[in-house]
Amino acid sequence: MTGRQRSWWGWGWTDQALSDEECAAVAAGLPGLSGTPRPVPSLADLPLRGPRVAAPSSLAGCVSETPEERIRHTYGKAYRDVVRALSGDLAAAPDLVACPRAERDVVDVLDWASSAGIAVVPFGGGSSVVGGVEYRGDAYAGAVSLDLTMLDRVLEVDPVGRAARIQAGVLGPALEDQLRPAGLTLRHFPQSFEFSTLGGWLATRSGGHYATLLTHIDDLVESMRVVTPVGISESLRVPGSGAGPSPDRLFLGSEGTLGVITEAWMRLQDRPRFKASASVRFGSFDDAVAAVRAIAQAGLHPANCRLLDPGESALSGASSGSVLVLGVESGHAPVDARLAELVALAGDHGGRPGDVAGADSAAATWRSAFLRMPYVRDGLARMGAIVETFETACTWDRFPGLYRAVRAEVGAAIERVTGAPGTVNCRFTHVYPDGPAPYFTVLAAGRRGAEVAMWDEIKAAASEVLGRHGATITHHHAVGRDHRPGYDRQRPAPFAAALRAAKAALDPAGVLNPGVLLDPV
Amino acid sequence: MTGRQRSWWGWGWTDQALSDEECAAVAAGLPGLSGTPRPVPSLADLPLRGPRVAAPSSLAGCVSETPEERIRHTYGKAYRDVVRALSGDLAAAPDLVACPRAERDVVDVLDWASSAGIAVVPFGGGSSVVGGVEYRGDAYAGAVSLDLTMLDRVLEVDPVGRAARIQAGVLGPALEDQLRPAGLTLRHFPQSFEFSTLGGWLATRSGGHYATLLTHIDDLVESMRVVTPVGISESLRVPGSGAGPSPDRLFLGSEGTLGVITEAWMRLQDRPRFKASASVRFGSFDDAVAAVRAIAQAGLHPANCRLLDPGESALSGASSGSVLVLGVESGHAPVDARLAELVALAGDHGGRPGDVAGADSAAATWRSAFLRMPYVRDGLARMGAIVETFETACTWDRFPGLYRAVRAEVGAAIERVTGAPGTVNCRFTHVYPDGPAPYFTVLAAGRRGAEVAMWDEIKAAASEVLGRHGATITHHHAVGRDHRPGYDRQRPAPFAAALRAAKAALDPAGVLNPGVLLDPV
Repeated sequence: MTGRQRSWWGWGWTDQALSDEECAAVAAGLPGLSGTPRPVPSLADLPLRGPRVAAPSSLAGCVSETPEERIRHTYGKAYRDVVRALSGDLAAAPDLVACPRAERDVVDVLDWASSAGIAVVPFGGGSSVVGGVEYRGDAYAGAVSLDLTMLDRVLEVDPVGRAARIQAGVLGPALEDQLRPAGLTLRHFPQSFEFSTLGGWLATRSGGHYATLLTHIDDLVESMRVVTPVGISESLRVPGSGAGPSPDRLFLGSEGTLGVITEAWMRLQDRPRFKASASVRFGSFDDAVAAVRAIAQAGLHPANCRLLDPGESALSGASSGSVLVLGVESGHAPVDARLAELVALAGDHGGRPGDVAGADSAAATWRSAFLRMPYVRDGLARMGAIVETFETACTWDRFPGLYRAVRAEVGAAIERVTGAPGTVNCRFTHVYPDGPAPYFTVLAAGRRGAEVAMWDEIKAAASEVLGRHGATITHHHAVGRDHRPGYDRQRPAPFAAALRAAKAALDPAGVLNPGVLLDPV
Repeated sequence: MTGRQRSWWGWGWTDQALSDEECAAVAAGLPGLSGTPRPVPSLADLPLRGPRVAAPSSLAGCVSETPEERIRHTYGKAYRDVVRALSGDLAAAPDLVACPRAERDVVDVLDWASSAGIAVVPFGGGSSVVGGVEYRGDAYAGAVSLDLTMLDRVLEVDPVGRAARIQAGVLGPALEDQLRPAGLTLRHFPQSFEFSTLGGWLATRSGGHYATLLTHIDDLVESMRVVTPVGISESLRVPGSGAGPSPDRLFLGSEGTLGVITEAWMRLQDRPRFKASASVRFGSFDDAVAAVRAIAQAGLHPANCRLLDPGESALSGASSGSVLVLGVESGHAPVDARLAELVALAGDHGGRPGDVAGADSAAATWRSAFLRMPYVRDGLARMGAIVETFETACTWDRFPGLYRAVRAEVGAAIERVTGAPGTVNCRFTHVYPDGPAPYFTVLAAGRRGAEVAMWDEIKAAASEVLGRHGATITHHHAVGRDHRPGYDRQRPAPFAAALRAAKAALDPAGVLNPGVLLDPV
């Protein structure tokens, strides 16, 4: 990996980005796009105002004010971030970037920022797609991006209890590398895995790519250590407790507004030794949904249970019709019987098995498209396409109505906004006994220079449909700043009052990630 | 069940209480106890001060001030409650008992209490063993026990998503009776099941008697409706969400200090159709612990996985040596192969299988003793015995040291306090991949009139050992008032500040269950 460079404007590695020719090729199927990709500006040419604040000399060793560092910490990786970066809009750049080398530096940054009235935006891998790492406004003396990726070590492994004490700034691959010698794994693989951190997963209640059982990072936490402006909160490391409301559950999902997570004891698992996967095809999407519900309620706990609707299936090249990708794994015993049971259950609902054993081709095709998708998204964005996703969760009884309404109403919004029809596809990323987590992909031709505004209007329509159908504003993308209106509608008012009070108690100066979850004080 | 009467001073039904002869018989094995049981006072003879407050006429229909109702709501069902009731100590009796017939009554009671400065103690089945339902002190104009058991209906069943909207005051058996016609079950069976309510389980983060996977009520919640003094908090009913810190997790474990839970959408399961159980005997307790750890980490999810140490095993009549009771069940597929796998895993660690199939005698003996135990406890209490339990959870690496220390130090405390050796036994009630939930039973001869003080001293020693060994002050008995010192030590200070702030926001007059979790304002 040495020498590989992260993209400052788009997803992942620069050497994985689409070439101009590839951009044009992926856009060829979408009418209304210009023939040439928007150029990627040179970092050195980008206009950037000077920093409005300076760090005290005690922090000089861990603070940078170089334009490159500031630009790299301006945005997350949402579609609207990519477009704004490509257009050279860097008004939201932080004044400084702090990279703590130890927890003590985090304490010092919060002390300084609290006393100087400077906004602090915690920054892990920077993969937010909801405006979670971008301070908006000018109510503070300045803004500091607090990059935690130097806190990247597994500090302690307990092989008896299968747990590890891990620094929050570690990226997914480095985390797994450090656990591998012990034969253990956190087994949490969100799509952003390569470019997101443990602390980011915890702060946003991340969902891994496993479809059932241990999907949310929430359930993998034994204890957390959080630096707040009023002191360090460290919960007791126990397998279970009924001692009052869970301290960890207050910080899980707090998105940097209540404190900065610096360490956590995480529950680990034995590395899987047995794996099997299969795909099942359905002529009817309704039948496929019924099959997935039966599977989710049968207690078989497949590792993967991803349903692609006909549009998503065609887009990923996996197949025509609806495709269900099933995967089973275990660190202890062969899983073939369980896979057969799952395929049989799907068969009861009209599913026709694909190739059951080993490397299933539809599953492999889909997985490769899955990992490639963010790079393709960037290529399409350069071509002027509107290409973004949103996700939710709802109970099974509400899904059919929600699916129809999203396709109809978001489709209508696309046509109203862009003047032409677009695509709205759906897959299930996670399934629960009581309902699925549908993930929608939107693809349409934008008008260059107006893409962000156009997307914002489409997204508002999408959020409105979700709210009206009793679906959550976000299953695993977090709230950030972009989901605030929908979140504010979803959140019970007394809980909002309690959260505001907790925030005031922990962050009296109101400097932590202002605008996320709550209005700035 | 018609005509059965609940005991006002002890556990459960009056017709299940031990006779005087049975009391003497169970105490026979314990030297130092008097030959005759303490008499049960007559309700009519008990001295009780008059109510200090009167309800407004608008609440007259749901408020009682009869001595019997007030006495029945004075205590929970801890050992120290039983002894105090038997001795006629009713100083803590509430002034009034309110029994809301609808949520509106709950709102009205909180409005009135907030404006009049009256403490409100939410009361479900009254099975608290930690002083959770007993207001202590005189800083309020009066105290009202808010009995929610008239809110006892399943309001709605969603068979598609397998969930139900349930009123919080329903007792366990009535809840299951209402779900049975739909073929569904909440499958949450704490030892107090017959005499505790859904709302109590939620407010205290109850653990059911299933040993693995879905043990805590927390994980069965889809959404909750909570009446707070500043409004009703109702969370969105979805299978999963990443939208900020979970509102439900703030109220779970809040023990009536932040609001009164009136309804919840609960996740249900198909009723089990296949069951199998077995017992396994071990010559060495350490081997048995190793076997249980291997089982907990193998992903086999037994419904029961109860390990009894030699003392507990002898006491329950199950066997000599250490006994592991294993149970497996499913609503979908036969479970015999899984049971065989579990027994084999135990065998790898030196376990000798008992009778594997069907009604295993050790398991049956133990289960019957389990359900009978609270009545026996009451009988022993009438004989002057000190008989109580405490429970915790810790990581696997800490368990051996904790077990030794608890037996040694609590044993020493018993000898110091009572002047004679007592018994300290242990079983595992729940096991997790990262550690067990050990449950300790203490039995010793007390001195009549001093039992509560003696127990308090023994309990303080126990709590001190738990804290020193990094074990939680409570796994499923909650905090209440009795666990406050240990809880205050366990709880991170910044979280305590956040909780106090949340409490002040939701309960500005500070009337909700004062003294539980937090000091009264």
